[in-house]
Amino acid sequence: MKLGRIVREGPDGPEPRLVTVVPEEGRVVDLVSAERDRLEREGATREGAARIAAALFPASTAAALGGGDAFRRGAELTAGGTGGAGDLPLDEVEWASPVDPPAMLDASAFEQHLVNAHARGKREVPDHFYQVPVYYKMSPLTVIGPDAEVPWPGGVGFMDYELEFALVIGRRGADLRPDQASRHVFGITVMNDFSARDVQAAEMRSGFGPAKGKDFATALGPWISTLDELDLSDLAMVARVNGEEWSRGSTSTLTWSVEEIVAFVSKGEPVVPGQVIGSGTVGLGSGLELYKKLQPGDVIELEIEGVGVLRNTIGRPGEEGWRPDQKERRAEVTLPTRTD
Amino acid sequence: MKLGRIVREGPDGPEPRLVTVVPEEGRVVDLVSAERDRLEREGATREGAARIAAALFPASTAAALGGGDAFRRGAELTAGGTGGAGDLPLDEVEWASPVDPPAMLDASAFEQHLVNAHARGKREVPDHFYQVPVYYKMSPLTVIGPDAEVPWPGGVGFMDYELEFALVIGRRGADLRPDQASRHVFGITVMNDFSARDVQAAEMRSGFGPAKGKDFATALGPWISTLDELDLSDLAMVARVNGEEWSRGSTSTLTWSVEEIVAFVSKGEPVVPGQVIGSGTVGLGSGLELYKKLQPGDVIELEIEGVGVLRNTIGRPGEEGWRPDQKERRAEVTLPTRTD
Repeated sequence: MKLGRIVREGPDGPEPRLVTVVPEEGRVVDLVSAERDRLEREGATREGAARIAAALFPASTAAALGGGDAFRRGAELTAGGTGGAGDLPLDEVEWASPVDPPAMLDASAFEQHLVNAHARGKREVPDHFYQVPVYYKMSPLTVIGPDAEVPWPGGVGFMDYELEFALVIGRRGADLRPDQASRHVFGITVMNDFSARDVQAAEMRSGFGPAKGKDFATALGPWISTLDELDLSDLAMVARVNGEEWSRGSTSTLTWSVEEIVAFVSKGEPVVPGQVIGSGTVGLGSGLELYKKLQPGDVIELEIEGVGVLRNTIGRPGEEGWRPDQKERRAEVTLPTRTD
Repeated sequence: MKLGRIVREGPDGPEPRLVTVVPEEGRVVDLVSAERDRLEREGATREGAARIAAALFPASTAAALGGGDAFRRGAELTAGGTGGAGDLPLDEVEWASPVDPPAMLDASAFEQHLVNAHARGKREVPDHFYQVPVYYKMSPLTVIGPDAEVPWPGGVGFMDYELEFALVIGRRGADLRPDQASRHVFGITVMNDFSARDVQAAEMRSGFGPAKGKDFATALGPWISTLDELDLSDLAMVARVNGEEWSRGSTSTLTWSVEEIVAFVSKGEPVVPGQVIGSGTVGLGSGLELYKKLQPGDVIELEIEGVGVLRNTIGRPGEEGWRPDQKERRAEVTLPTRTD
């Protein structure tokens, strides 16, 4: 199954709607519309059908996945119906991000990118990256979908992309072993972890992880392909800028497996439905590794075999607003005399 | 107003309920119960009253704050009623965390803590902390409330607390100036940013920010005091362990103001209702700065003047489950010849 979200106009303005996607037939199926129709044909009233369909297929993908097997079976049954209710032409819909993650993080599971990125900073990759599948936490508040313009924050000089795939968690769990991890993954989508390299470089020296250098936007899409449709051992990953291929890689070059990543993320804390876990950037999957920078107006396409193409346009630089004034160093060390 | 959440048993199990808190009268007001009663007295049917009350005061504080002025006015009107409906004795309720943040981060606005913590690692505080109010992103998935036991993840040797206050955002905004920031803050609560120092020290060297060293638990509570009740310029902050005072500080020692922190967080991205922004640890507000460690069974109380006391008990160390196997260094640098 391929699960996405589109935006449709309603009496109260645009609203996201869950769809299954059938690219080979050029159509999507609006799940609420299709389920309403199916339930009415089974004897439900119009109101009853609408109520149940809305509960099963809410606007939030995370909430929908929280429905567990009832959601998944419902989506398969509904989308597989022959009524045609809810069918919309794929090339006419307006896409939203396929998921609204309650938490989002990005692993760094491709050694090649780490080695290259650190080499540009004349540094060695820290040992920690070889000991565990290190990740940083992303902002779930600035997820954008297919075709969305990427905001260019004021003051940013070096705009970059990162070619990644992302896991979408389908089932809650904690302290999973790698052999248990797959059943907690609903599917994968394409992730573009947009990065303001000049801002990021400064803030990484704090040790607190990326913030303003990455949190302005992360693109996900075009939809989620469920794991049963994919062979994760070797999916081609490609980036094109204005139609020209800049990056090409494969999931076969992962240093940490998907199962190891999910198991580590779940160590001592939960993974939850709708949570997104990026793979990290495939080797040579960023401008940083190519001495290339994105420019305003560039069209960036990331493609992952078996999923699809995530296309975004880079916006114009914004005005830089307020900036903090530098503080003086004032405090002296006040540690007590050590007695232990 | 003081806004919190309690847990009540319903036909489908325990459910969080929003309450206003009147500590001086030893009572809380269950807002759904009080509002149902008020609406019925105004002529609503039982069903109509229940529907409106549930929409105005949902179980999620973040969703409730998303109701804007309608929520705030409603809470004041409802809690101020004289009917007594919804009144519960404060010392008999079971508390939940006062907010379910859609995003949570922690600034580092007290220089004294930074200087001390870096001194213990024989390092200087990086310049970046003086240039901007640096923050790291926390996990919103492991928030615990008052009286909850703090899980001690397997393999952790050095369990620590951090004495902080936290801002709760009430109104969406972006690119705010400091003079606009206060009206986006609903109130403050107490935050205990529990930290596994041995785990954290290893992972901070990755530059990706804290993860397993902090994400196992963060305590918030006991409730949120709205800004109009507080003078943020000098609130006492105290930590006690098993009744003994370990830490004492004041909001007067902030290096970055609340307004600067919120403005910076909103730079190029939104702040949203229910989002939590920690202040960072007040100077000497952690065991790390005192050569002291928490032990299983310890009772840790954090108190902030004008808010209240957040009390938690430290749990017993868990079993350590799966651990990743170390990977070998394999990749060579593949950067192209530089042409720009």
